[in-house]
Amino acid sequence: MRLSPAIQELVQALRLLPGVGPKSAQRMTFQLLERQREGALRLAQALTDAVEKVGHCNQCRTLTEEQTCAICADAKRRDSGLLCIVETPADVLAIEQTGQYQGCYFVLMGHLSPLDGIGPEDIGLDVLAKRLQQEAIEEVILATNPTVEGEATAHFIADLARSRNIRTSRIAHGVPVGGELEYVDQATLGHAFSGRKVIDHN
Amino acid sequence: MRLSPAIQELVQALRLLPGVGPKSAQRMTFQLLERQREGALRLAQALTDAVEKVGHCNQCRTLTEEQTCAICADAKRRDSGLLCIVETPADVLAIEQTGQYQGCYFVLMGHLSPLDGIGPEDIGLDVLAKRLQQEAIEEVILATNPTVEGEATAHFIADLARSRNIRTSRIAHGVPVGGELEYVDQATLGHAFSGRKVIDHN
Ligand SMILES: [Zn+2]
Ligand SMILES: [Zn+2]
Repeated sequence: MRLSPAIQELVQALRLLPGVGPKSAQRMTFQLLERQREGALRLAQALTDAVEKVGHCNQCRTLTEEQTCAICADAKRRDSGLLCIVETPADVLAIEQTGQYQGCYFVLMGHLSPLDGIGPEDIGLDVLAKRLQQEAIEEVILATNPTVEGEATAHFIADLARSRNIRTSRIAHGVPVGGELEYVDQATLGHAFSGRKVIDHN
Repeated sequence: MRLSPAIQELVQALRLLPGVGPKSAQRMTFQLLERQREGALRLAQALTDAVEKVGHCNQCRTLTEEQTCAICADAKRRDSGLLCIVETPADVLAIEQTGQYQGCYFVLMGHLSPLDGIGPEDIGLDVLAKRLQQEAIEEVILATNPTVEGEATAHFIADLARSRNIRTSRIAHGVPVGGELEYVDQATLGHAFSGRKVIDHN
Protein backbone atom coordinates (compact mmCIF):
# COMPACT_ATOMS: atom_id res chain seq x y z
CA MET A 1 0.00 0.00 0.00
CA ARG A 2 1.72 3.15 -1.20
CA LEU A 3 -0.89 5.76 -0.40
CA SER A 4 0.30 9.26 0.37
CA PRO A 5 -0.29 10.44 3.98
CA ALA A 6 -3.37 12.63 3.38
CA ILE A 7 -5.07 9.81 1.47
CA GLN A 8 -4.07 7.22 4.06
CA GLU A 9 -5.45 9.40 6.87
CA LEU A 10 -8.78 9.77 5.04
CA VAL A 11 -9.01 5.99 4.62
CA GLN A 12 -8.30 5.52 8.34
CA ALA A 13 -10.80 8.21 9.38
CA LEU A 14 -13.56 6.69 7.23
CA ARG A 15 -13.00 3.38 9.00
CA LEU A 16 -14.30 5.02 12.18
CA LEU A 17 -17.77 4.82 10.61
CA PRO A 18 -19.75 1.75 11.68
CA GLY A 19 -19.78 -1.01 9.07
CA VAL A 20 -16.92 0.45 7.02
CA GLY A 21 -14.00 -1.94 6.52
CA PRO A 22 -10.62 -1.26 4.89
CA LYS A 23 -11.82 -2.02 1.36
CA SER A 24 -14.93 0.19 1.59
CA ALA A 25 -12.94 3.00 3.20
CA GLN A 26 -10.50 2.89 0.30
CA ARG A 27 -13.31 2.83 -2.23
CA MET A 28 -15.00 5.81 -0.53
CA THR A 29 -11.72 7.73 -0.45
CA PHE A 30 -11.03 7.28 -4.14
CA GLN A 31 -14.59 8.09 -5.14
CA LEU A 32 -14.59 11.27 -3.06
CA LEU A 33 -11.22 12.44 -4.40
CA GLU A 34 -11.84 11.44 -8.01
CA ARG A 35 -15.43 12.49 -8.46
CA GLN A 36 -16.97 14.11 -5.40
CA ARG A 37 -14.69 16.74 -3.97
CA GLU A 38 -17.59 19.09 -3.36
CA GLY A 39 -19.44 16.27 -1.66
CA ALA A 40 -16.40 15.61 0.53
CA LEU A 41 -16.33 19.24 1.64
CA ARG A 42 -20.08 19.17 2.25
CA LEU A 43 -19.62 16.10 4.44
CA ALA A 44 -16.74 17.75 6.32
CA GLN A 45 -18.94 20.79 6.98
CA ALA A 46 -21.92 18.67 8.03
CA LEU A 47 -19.73 16.75 10.50
CA THR A 48 -18.26 19.93 11.99
CA ASP A 49 -21.66 21.64 12.21
CA ALA A 50 -23.35 18.66 13.79
CA VAL A 51 -20.62 18.15 16.39
CA GLU A 52 -20.65 21.86 17.19
CA LYS A 53 -24.40 22.41 17.35
CA VAL A 54 -26.06 19.16 18.33
CA GLY A 55 -26.65 18.62 22.01
CA HIS A 56 -29.48 17.08 23.97
CA CYS A 57 -33.12 18.13 24.29
CA ASN A 58 -33.63 19.65 27.73
CA GLN A 59 -36.86 17.66 28.12
CA CYS A 60 -36.27 14.21 26.61
CA ARG A 61 -32.47 14.10 26.18
CA THR A 62 -32.64 13.12 22.51
CA LEU A 63 -30.04 14.51 20.09
CA THR A 64 -31.04 17.89 18.69
CA GLU A 65 -29.51 21.31 18.12
CA GLU A 66 -32.59 22.94 19.61
CA GLN A 67 -33.08 23.61 23.33
CA THR A 68 -36.28 21.59 23.21
CA CYS A 69 -36.82 19.08 20.40
CA ALA A 70 -39.78 19.32 18.01
CA ILE A 71 -41.66 16.48 19.72
CA CYS A 72 -41.27 17.86 23.23
CA ALA A 73 -42.25 21.33 21.97
CA ASP A 74 -45.52 19.95 20.56
CA ALA A 75 -48.25 20.89 23.08
CA LYS A 76 -50.64 18.25 21.74
CA ARG A 77 -48.10 15.52 22.39
CA ARG A 78 -47.22 16.87 25.84
CA ASP A 79 -50.93 17.00 26.73
CA SER A 80 -51.32 13.31 25.84
CA GLY A 81 -49.88 12.45 29.25
CA LEU A 82 -47.97 9.57 27.62
CA LEU A 83 -44.21 9.24 28.12
CA CYS A 84 -42.41 6.52 26.20
CA ILE A 85 -38.97 5.52 27.49
CA VAL A 86 -36.45 4.44 24.85
CA GLU A 87 -32.73 3.80 24.82
CA THR A 88 -31.65 5.82 21.77
CA PRO A 89 -32.72 8.57 19.33
CA ALA A 90 -32.84 5.88 16.62
CA ASP A 91 -35.58 4.15 18.62
CA VAL A 92 -37.60 7.39 18.59
CA LEU A 93 -37.34 7.47 14.79
CA ALA A 94 -38.35 3.84 14.50
CA ILE A 95 -41.43 4.41 16.66
CA GLU A 96 -42.32 7.66 14.88
CA GLN A 97 -42.32 5.76 11.61
CA THR A 98 -45.09 3.45 12.82
CA GLY A 99 -47.32 6.54 13.10
CA GLN A 100 -49.10 4.82 16.01
CA TYR A 101 -47.81 6.84 18.92
CA GLN A 102 -48.75 10.44 19.66
CA GLY A 103 -47.15 10.99 23.07
CA CYS A 104 -43.75 12.18 24.23
CA TYR A 105 -40.46 10.36 24.73
CA PHE A 106 -37.69 10.15 27.22
CA VAL A 107 -34.41 9.01 25.70
CA LEU A 108 -32.01 7.27 28.06
CA MET A 109 -29.06 7.44 25.64
CA GLY A 110 -28.13 3.96 26.88
CA HIS A 111 -29.25 1.50 29.53
CA LEU A 112 -28.29 0.53 33.06
CA SER A 113 -25.07 -1.47 33.02
CA PRO A 114 -23.49 -1.70 36.48
CA LEU A 115 -20.52 -3.69 35.16
CA ASP A 116 -19.65 -0.80 32.85
CA GLY A 117 -20.24 1.70 35.63
CA ILE A 118 -23.41 3.03 34.02
CA GLY A 119 -25.85 3.86 36.83
CA PRO A 120 -29.25 5.61 37.00
CA GLU A 121 -27.90 9.18 36.73
CA ASP A 122 -25.80 8.31 33.68
CA ILE A 123 -29.00 7.53 31.79
CA GLY A 124 -30.88 10.56 33.15
CA LEU A 125 -33.11 8.76 35.63
CA ASP A 126 -32.73 11.64 38.11
CA VAL A 127 -34.15 13.95 35.45
CA LEU A 128 -36.89 11.43 34.68
CA ALA A 129 -37.78 11.13 38.38
CA LYS A 130 -38.19 14.91 38.57
CA ARG A 131 -40.39 14.94 35.49
CA LEU A 132 -42.58 12.15 36.88
CA GLN A 133 -43.02 14.20 40.02
CA GLN A 134 -43.66 17.59 38.44
CA GLU A 135 -45.64 16.81 35.29
CA ALA A 136 -49.08 15.36 34.71
CA ILE A 137 -47.85 12.09 33.25
CA GLU A 138 -50.58 9.46 33.09
CA GLU A 139 -48.70 6.55 31.65
CA VAL A 140 -45.07 5.57 31.28
CA ILE A 141 -44.54 3.23 28.33
CA LEU A 142 -41.35 1.21 28.64
CA ALA A 143 -39.84 0.63 25.20
CA THR A 144 -36.29 -0.27 26.14
CA ASN A 145 -34.75 -3.11 24.14
CA PRO A 146 -35.80 -6.67 25.07
CA THR A 147 -32.25 -7.49 26.13
CA VAL A 148 -31.00 -8.29 29.64
CA GLU A 149 -29.89 -4.68 30.23
CA GLY A 150 -33.00 -3.25 28.59
CA GLU A 151 -35.27 -5.39 30.81
CA ALA A 152 -33.32 -4.45 33.95
CA THR A 153 -33.61 -0.78 33.01
CA ALA A 154 -37.35 -1.19 32.39
CA HIS A 155 -37.79 -2.78 35.83
CA PHE A 156 -35.89 0.02 37.49
CA ILE A 157 -38.08 2.66 35.81
CA ALA A 158 -41.25 0.70 36.56
CA ASP A 159 -40.31 0.90 40.25
CA LEU A 160 -39.72 4.64 39.90
CA ALA A 161 -43.15 5.13 38.31
CA ARG A 162 -44.86 2.89 40.88
CA SER A 163 -43.51 5.08 43.70
CA ARG A 164 -45.35 7.99 42.01
CA ASN A 165 -48.48 5.90 41.36
CA ILE A 166 -48.15 6.33 37.61
CA ARG A 167 -49.56 3.68 35.31
CA THR A 168 -46.71 1.81 33.64
CA SER A 169 -46.75 -0.41 30.57
CA ARG A 170 -44.18 -2.42 28.63
CA ILE A 171 -44.48 -2.67 24.85
CA ALA A 172 -45.57 -6.15 23.84
CA HIS A 173 -42.93 -8.68 22.94
CA GLY A 174 -43.76 -8.76 19.29
CA VAL A 175 -40.18 -7.65 18.88
CA PRO A 176 -37.73 -10.56 18.69
CA VAL A 177 -36.08 -11.17 22.07
CA GLY A 178 -32.38 -10.32 22.04
CA GLY A 179 -32.91 -8.04 19.06
CA GLU A 180 -32.46 -4.31 18.71
CA LEU A 181 -35.55 -2.17 18.56
CA GLU A 182 -34.05 0.04 15.91
CA TYR A 183 -34.11 -2.78 13.35
CA VAL A 184 -37.64 -4.08 13.87
CA ASP A 185 -40.01 -3.59 10.93
CA GLN A 186 -42.76 -1.00 11.31
CA ALA A 187 -45.66 -3.47 11.43
CA THR A 188 -44.16 -5.49 14.27
CA LEU A 189 -43.25 -2.38 16.17
CA GLY A 190 -46.73 -0.91 15.70
CA HIS A 191 -48.21 -4.18 16.97
CA ALA A 192 -45.93 -4.09 19.98
CA PHE A 193 -47.27 -0.64 20.79
CA SER A 194 -50.96 -1.41 20.45
CA GLY A 195 -50.55 -4.65 22.42
CA ARG A 196 -48.68 -3.09 25.32
CA LYS A 197 -49.54 -4.51 28.76
CA VAL A 198 -50.14 -2.57 31.97
CA ILE A 199 -47.59 -3.57 34.59
CA ASP A 200 -49.38 -4.68 37.74
CA HIS A 201 -47.89 -2.80 40.65
CA ASN A 202 -48.58 -5.67 43.02
CA MET B 1 -38.79 11.64 10.61
CA ARG B 2 -38.31 14.52 13.02
CA LEU B 3 -34.57 15.01 12.88
CA SER B 4 -33.28 18.51 13.53
CA PRO B 5 -31.65 20.25 10.52
CA ALA B 6 -27.98 19.71 11.47
CA ILE B 7 -28.61 16.00 12.07
CA GLN B 8 -30.64 15.66 8.88
CA GLU B 9 -27.88 17.34 6.85
CA LEU B 10 -25.28 14.95 8.28
CA VAL B 11 -27.46 11.96 7.33
CA GLN B 12 -27.82 13.36 3.79
CA ALA B 13 -24.10 14.11 3.45
CA LEU B 14 -23.13 10.60 4.59
CA ARG B 15 -25.37 9.19 1.87
CA LEU B 16 -22.95 10.68 -0.68
CA LEU B 17 -20.56 7.88 0.29
CA PRO B 18 -20.74 4.85 -2.02
CA GLY B 19 -22.72 1.96 -0.55
CA VAL B 20 -24.32 4.03 2.22
CA GLY B 21 -28.13 3.92 2.20
CA PRO B 22 -30.56 5.90 4.36
CA LYS B 23 -30.53 3.41 7.23
CA SER B 24 -26.71 3.17 7.41
CA ALA B 25 -26.36 6.94 7.14
CA GLN B 26 -28.72 7.35 10.08
CA ARG B 27 -26.85 4.71 12.07
CA MET B 28 -23.51 6.40 11.32
CA THR B 29 -24.90 9.79 12.31
CA PHE B 30 -26.17 8.63 15.68
CA GLN B 31 -23.01 6.69 16.44
CA LEU B 32 -20.82 9.68 15.61
CA LEU B 33 -22.92 12.10 17.68
CA GLU B 34 -23.49 9.77 20.62
CA ARG B 35 -20.10 8.18 20.98
CA GLN B 36 -17.51 9.45 18.49
CA ARG B 37 -17.51 13.21 18.36
CA GLU B 38 -13.74 13.34 18.26
CA GLY B 39 -13.79 10.80 15.46
CA ALA B 40 -16.31 12.93 13.57
CA LEU B 41 -14.01 15.97 13.82
CA ARG B 42 -11.04 13.85 12.76
CA LEU B 43 -12.99 12.69 9.70
CA ALA B 44 -14.01 16.27 8.87
CA GLN B 45 -10.37 17.34 9.06
CA ALA B 46 -9.19 14.39 6.96
CA LEU B 47 -11.76 15.20 4.27
CA THR B 48 -10.80 18.87 4.18
CA ASP B 49 -7.07 18.12 4.15
CA ALA B 50 -7.35 15.51 1.42
CA VAL B 51 -9.49 17.71 -0.83
CA GLU B 52 -7.11 20.62 -0.27
CA LYS B 53 -3.82 18.77 -0.69
CA VAL B 54 -4.37 15.79 -2.96
CA GLY B 55 -3.79 16.33 -6.64
CA HIS B 56 -2.28 14.19 -9.35
CA CYS B 57 1.25 12.84 -9.75
CA ASN B 58 3.00 14.80 -12.49
CA GLN B 59 4.34 11.55 -13.93
CA CYS B 60 1.58 8.93 -13.66
CA ARG B 61 -1.50 11.01 -12.80
CA THR B 62 -2.40 8.94 -9.74
CA LEU B 63 -3.88 10.65 -6.69
CA THR B 64 -1.21 11.97 -4.35
CA GLU B 65 -0.38 15.14 -2.43
CA GLU B 66 3.19 14.94 -3.65
CA GLN B 67 4.44 16.40 -6.93
CA THR B 68 5.70 12.97 -7.93
CA CYS B 69 4.26 9.88 -6.26
CA ALA B 70 6.43 7.40 -4.36
CA ILE B 71 6.37 4.83 -7.16
CA CYS B 72 7.32 7.28 -9.90
CA ALA B 73 10.05 8.70 -7.65
CA ASP B 74 11.61 5.24 -7.25
CA ALA B 75 14.62 5.10 -9.63
CA LYS B 76 14.70 1.31 -9.59
CA ARG B 77 11.13 1.14 -10.81
CA ARG B 78 11.70 3.84 -13.45
CA ASP B 79 14.76 1.96 -14.69
CA SER B 80 12.69 -1.19 -15.20
CA GLY B 81 11.43 0.25 -18.49
CA LEU B 82 7.98 -1.19 -17.72
CA LEU B 83 4.90 1.04 -17.82
CA CYS B 84 1.59 -0.43 -16.73
CA ILE B 85 -1.55 1.41 -17.82
CA VAL B 86 -4.50 1.26 -15.43
CA GLU B 87 -7.80 3.08 -15.13
CA THR B 88 -7.75 4.10 -11.47
CA PRO B 89 -5.53 4.56 -8.40
CA ALA B 90 -7.40 1.65 -6.82
CA ASP B 91 -6.09 -0.57 -9.63
CA VAL B 92 -2.52 0.48 -8.75
CA LEU B 93 -3.13 -0.62 -5.15
CA ALA B 94 -4.60 -3.92 -6.26
CA ILE B 95 -1.59 -4.66 -8.48
CA GLU B 96 0.89 -3.52 -5.81
CA GLN B 97 -0.67 -6.00 -3.43
CA THR B 98 0.20 -8.91 -5.72
CA GLY B 99 3.87 -8.01 -5.19
CA GLN B 100 4.56 -9.30 -8.72
CA TYR B 101 5.15 -6.06 -10.56
CA GLN B 102 8.18 -3.82 -10.13
CA GLY B 103 7.68 -1.26 -12.90
CA CYS B 104 5.89 2.08 -13.13
CA TYR B 105 2.26 2.98 -13.79
CA PHE B 106 0.25 5.40 -15.84
CA VAL B 107 -3.19 6.07 -14.37
CA LEU B 108 -5.84 7.12 -16.87
CA MET B 109 -8.33 8.20 -14.17
CA GLY B 110 -11.05 6.73 -16.39
CA HIS B 111 -11.38 5.21 -19.85
CA LEU B 112 -12.30 6.34 -23.33
CA SER B 113 -16.04 6.88 -23.56
CA PRO B 114 -17.02 8.87 -26.66
CA LEU B 115 -20.72 8.80 -25.72
CA ASP B 116 -19.89 10.59 -22.46
CA GLY B 117 -17.56 12.97 -24.28
CA ILE B 118 -14.45 11.43 -22.74
CA GLY B 119 -11.71 11.50 -25.37
CA PRO B 120 -7.97 10.72 -25.38
CA GLU B 121 -6.86 13.98 -23.74
CA ASP B 122 -9.38 13.60 -20.92
CA ILE B 123 -7.59 10.43 -19.85
CA GLY B 124 -4.11 11.90 -20.31
CA LEU B 125 -3.16 10.12 -23.52
CA ASP B 126 -1.42 13.26 -24.79
CA VAL B 127 0.82 13.11 -21.70
CA LEU B 128 1.31 9.38 -22.21
CA ALA B 129 2.27 9.89 -25.87
CA LYS B 130 4.94 12.39 -24.80
CA ARG B 131 6.31 9.98 -22.20
CA LEU B 132 6.46 7.15 -24.74
CA GLN B 133 8.45 9.42 -27.02
CA GLN B 134 10.83 10.89 -24.45
CA GLU B 135 11.51 8.03 -22.06
CA ALA B 136 13.22 4.69 -22.46
CA ILE B 137 10.09 2.61 -22.08
CA GLU B 138 10.60 -0.98 -23.17
CA GLU B 139 7.16 -2.39 -22.60
CA VAL B 140 3.69 -1.00 -22.13
CA ILE B 141 1.47 -3.33 -20.12
CA LEU B 142 -2.21 -2.72 -20.69
CA ALA B 143 -4.15 -3.40 -17.49
CA THR B 144 -7.37 -1.53 -18.22
CA ASN B 145 -10.55 -3.29 -17.14
CA PRO B 146 -11.82 -6.14 -19.36
CA THR B 147 -14.97 -4.18 -20.17
CA VAL B 148 -16.00 -2.76 -23.54
CA GLU B 149 -14.59 0.68 -22.70
CA GLY B 150 -11.47 -0.77 -21.11
CA GLU B 151 -10.77 -2.91 -24.18
CA ALA B 152 -11.33 0.03 -26.53
CA THR B 153 -8.97 2.13 -24.44
CA ALA B 154 -6.37 -0.67 -24.49
CA HIS B 155 -6.59 -0.88 -28.29
CA PHE B 156 -6.15 2.85 -28.62
CA ILE B 157 -3.03 2.81 -26.44
CA ALA B 158 -1.66 -0.26 -28.23
CA ASP B 159 -1.83 1.73 -31.48
CA LEU B 160 -0.04 4.62 -29.79
CA ALA B 161 2.75 2.30 -28.59
CA ARG B 162 3.03 0.58 -31.96
CA SER B 163 3.66 3.92 -33.65
CA ARG B 164 6.67 4.26 -31.31
CA ASN B 165 7.73 0.63 -31.82
CA ILE B 166 7.29 -0.14 -28.15
CA ARG B 167 6.50 -3.68 -27.10
CA THR B 168 2.94 -3.84 -25.82
CA SER B 169 1.22 -6.50 -23.73
CA ARG B 170 -2.24 -7.04 -22.30
CA ILE B 171 -2.61 -8.71 -18.90
CA ALA B 172 -4.05 -12.20 -19.26
CA HIS B 173 -7.76 -12.69 -18.94
CA GLY B 174 -7.59 -14.53 -15.70
CA VAL B 175 -9.76 -11.67 -14.52
CA PRO B 176 -13.48 -12.27 -15.02
CA VAL B 177 -14.75 -10.53 -18.14
CA GLY B 178 -17.11 -7.67 -17.37
CA GLY B 179 -15.69 -7.38 -13.85
CA GLU B 180 -13.76 -4.60 -12.22
CA LEU B 181 -10.02 -5.04 -11.75
CA GLU B 182 -10.15 -3.46 -8.33
CA TYR B 183 -12.16 -6.39 -6.93
CA VAL B 184 -10.16 -9.30 -8.32
CA ASP B 185 -8.37 -11.44 -5.72
CA GLN B 186 -4.57 -11.19 -5.53
CA ALA B 187 -3.83 -14.68 -6.86
CA THR B 188 -5.92 -14.19 -10.01
CA LEU B 189 -4.45 -10.77 -10.59
CA GLY B 190 -0.90 -12.04 -10.09
CA HIS B 191 -1.62 -14.83 -12.55
CA ALA B 192 -2.98 -12.35 -15.06
CA PHE B 193 0.30 -10.45 -14.80
CA SER B 194 2.65 -13.39 -15.22
CA GLY B 195 0.55 -14.74 -18.12
CA ARG B 196 0.42 -11.46 -20.02
CA LYS B 197 0.61 -11.80 -23.82
CA VAL B 198 2.65 -9.65 -26.21
CA ILE B 199 0.35 -7.86 -28.66
CA ASP B 200 1.43 -8.67 -32.20
CA HIS B 201 1.77 -5.39 -34.07
CA ASN B 202 0.78 -7.04 -37.31
ZN1 LIG C 1 -37.25 16.37 23.44
ZN1 LIG D 1 3.28 8.73 -10.08
